Amino acid sequence: MLNFRYYNPTRIIFGKGVVDKIGKEVARYGKKALFVYGQGSIKRIGLYDLVVERLKEAGVEFVEHPGVKPNPVLSHVRKGVELAKREKVDVVVAVGGGSVIDEAKAIAAGAVAECDVWDFFEFKEQVKAALPIITVLTISGTGSEMNAGLVITNEEKKAKFGFRAEPLFPRVSFLDPTLTFTVPKDQTAYGSVDAFTHVSEVYCNRAKTGVMISEGIMETIMKTIVRYAPVAVEEPTNYEARAELMWCSSLALSGITWCGVGDLTLPAHMIEHALSALYDIAHGAGLAIVTPAWMRYMFKIQKFVEQLTTFSRNVFGADSVEEGIERFEQWMKSMGCPIRLADAGIPASDIDAIAENAFELSKAWGMSDFYTVDVIKEILSLCV
Amino acid sequence: MLNFRYYNPTRIIFGKGVVDKIGKEVARYGKKALFVYGQGSIKRIGLYDLVVERLKEAGVEFVEHPGVKPNPVLSHVRKGVELAKREKVDVVVAVGGGSVIDEAKAIAAGAVAECDVWDFFEFKEQVKAALPIITVLTISGTGSEMNAGLVITNEEKKAKFGFRAEPLFPRVSFLDPTLTFTVPKDQTAYGSVDAFTHVSEVYCNRAKTGVMISEGIMETIMKTIVRYAPVAVEEPTNYEARAELMWCSSLALSGITWCGVGDLTLPAHMIEHALSALYDIAHGAGLAIVTPAWMRYMFKIQKFVEQLTTFSRNVFGADSVEEGIERFEQWMKSMGCPIRLADAGIPASDIDAIAENAFELSKAWGMSDFYTVDVIKEILSLCV
Repeated sequence: MLNFRYYNPTRIIFGKGVVDKIGKEVARYGKKALFVYGQGSIKRIGLYDLVVERLKEAGVEFVEHPGVKPNPVLSHVRKGVELAKREKVDVVVAVGGGSVIDEAKAIAAGAVAECDVWDFFEFKEQVKAALPIITVLTISGTGSEMNAGLVITNEEKKAKFGFRAEPLFPRVSFLDPTLTFTVPKDQTAYGSVDAFTHVSEVYCNRAKTGVMISEGIMETIMKTIVRYAPVAVEEPTNYEARAELMWCSSLALSGITWCGVGDLTLPAHMIEHALSALYDIAHGAGLAIVTPAWMRYMFKIQKFVEQLTTFSRNVFGADSVEEGIERFEQWMKSMGCPIRLADAGIPASDIDAIAENAFELSKAWGMSDFYTVDVIKEILSLCV
Repeated sequence: MLNFRYYNPTRIIFGKGVVDKIGKEVARYGKKALFVYGQGSIKRIGLYDLVVERLKEAGVEFVEHPGVKPNPVLSHVRKGVELAKREKVDVVVAVGGGSVIDEAKAIAAGAVAECDVWDFFEFKEQVKAALPIITVLTISGTGSEMNAGLVITNEEKKAKFGFRAEPLFPRVSFLDPTLTFTVPKDQTAYGSVDAFTHVSEVYCNRAKTGVMISEGIMETIMKTIVRYAPVAVEEPTNYEARAELMWCSSLALSGITWCGVGDLTLPAHMIEHALSALYDIAHGAGLAIVTPAWMRYMFKIQKFVEQLTTFSRNVFGADSVEEGIERFEQWMKSMGCPIRLADAGIPASDIDAIAENAFELSKAWGMSDFYTVDVIKEILSLCV
């Protein structure tokens, strides 16, 4: 077991009807909130009204920052930072999916910073403080509700960058699986793939094997997602399926999975970020294309063979790595995910441009020793 | 999945040599520490000198409160509270096993309270604040290093009581498995049984079955302990075994296991507390006696049959509950644990007195509707 640090101070309030308690929790952190949300789906399901009512009852004033996009963009973050500063808010309330929470985190950091918020993404400045963040999750997948990370797209630079900083752990996250009943089939599948790959990448892409406790936890999360994601796709109001997926997604990137097995590195996520920066496809859809290709490449060059073998056997009951990856693909395909570039309408002729874009992130993440432009191209060629 | 709350803000710093960092971490929380430890084993392994040196280097003054007993007693806690108040310490540093950490928690609560510290144990007062606590763990088992609970024995009342309160989460816990290399075989076994039963009790004693993610995590922890505890008993300096046991013990009572399956209730622990209050036997030894009897009783009255069946199959590979409980006992016996009252020199004629003592705790824990004196006697009669 390798040395590790584990720290996750987010308070989880999970289950049916828990958002009823949001007023009291927000009031602990301040009198004035920035209420961040997306494209309005929270109004359709009545969640907007519920949050507004509970905040008012608790005597919390708020200003709204709606319109967060699925891949949240820097220009909108900057508007949120301006608003938070101008209105002198004490706390940020994010109601939505991973994109809304990620943008809320960027705003929470930017609101107390002197520098431009993008400086954090380019590692020119470090986040030393942030406004407290409280989230209400409406789609399972990114795990942003229970970690200190975020990803934002800089539209001008066509770059999708991310980082982690301790002040960005949400103080409280409300996880009510019934709020995900209306998530469409495709988004349910993409979110599940996102959560799954947060674990499968750590499981397969690591220095150390044979840490029984952490491997077992990772296998449990992956097997639970494999079982319940298709159920949620088929029966959107199946509470057990939605609940298992929601808690698995939160745990998947909470830090609990990689204790003792090495630090978090997500190369397939890195390559996918180039896809969704350039094409604005759903992150989970991009992962469904890139992750099996990354696995095939690693197996081809005989790297992580032991990990890939155990993954194939213990998660998909497969006798070989080839069969394991195929079952993984079939599981995603059965839920309607694209598994090749063409399935998402991306021409193979774009591979060079995608690889160049991904390589910028590879440098930023300190992975460019191995993930050169050529290696990324080879992985992308396996997505054709 | 049942509604739940999860919150665990303890920062874990895990691995070889991590205690080197203790000075800096303690200095974050204050300039003067109360240094709590036990019977001197930390001096024999050089840990005392290391901690003293690192605290001095970091400019942290300290006063010592040594002599914590294996089942920590109220009179010694009160002395610690007096000392902490008189010396106006800012932070409590606990170096030892669960007993030392539990006593440190009681002192940390008492040091900022107006009331007598025992009032917290009788639920007359609530802990609203405490001095920050930093721990260095030297024996795996109780999980106190990563939770907000504690258990103290009131010698006058012959009562072993416990409670939980959020301010008592250690701020930082240093977990170096090499510090457990010198833990004797019997204590290694007892600590492992303690950690195992923190999970097996939650797994078997619950309202809800079929929460795949939490059950899977619990099974992983139990299977890891079953595998590595005998290795650590046989090869005390086997790092992997010590590391797996240490992390499993911390996770076992961290709160992560009972998400969605119902609140933590530990009836076998409750009955065991009466044993170790009356006879001063090791907590883990008492659990090895009581837990299988508790399981047999529940199976006899046809309660938790589904849970006990799954436990037997998934943790011990047994086809029946009878066989599962027997394998569980054999596993403990093979490590030298007592599994009957007589093995610990406790006469069957004492059962009535033990049951009366346990019933006091049953009332305090709000479990007396089911765990009456008669039921407790029946369970104890299965320990003969």
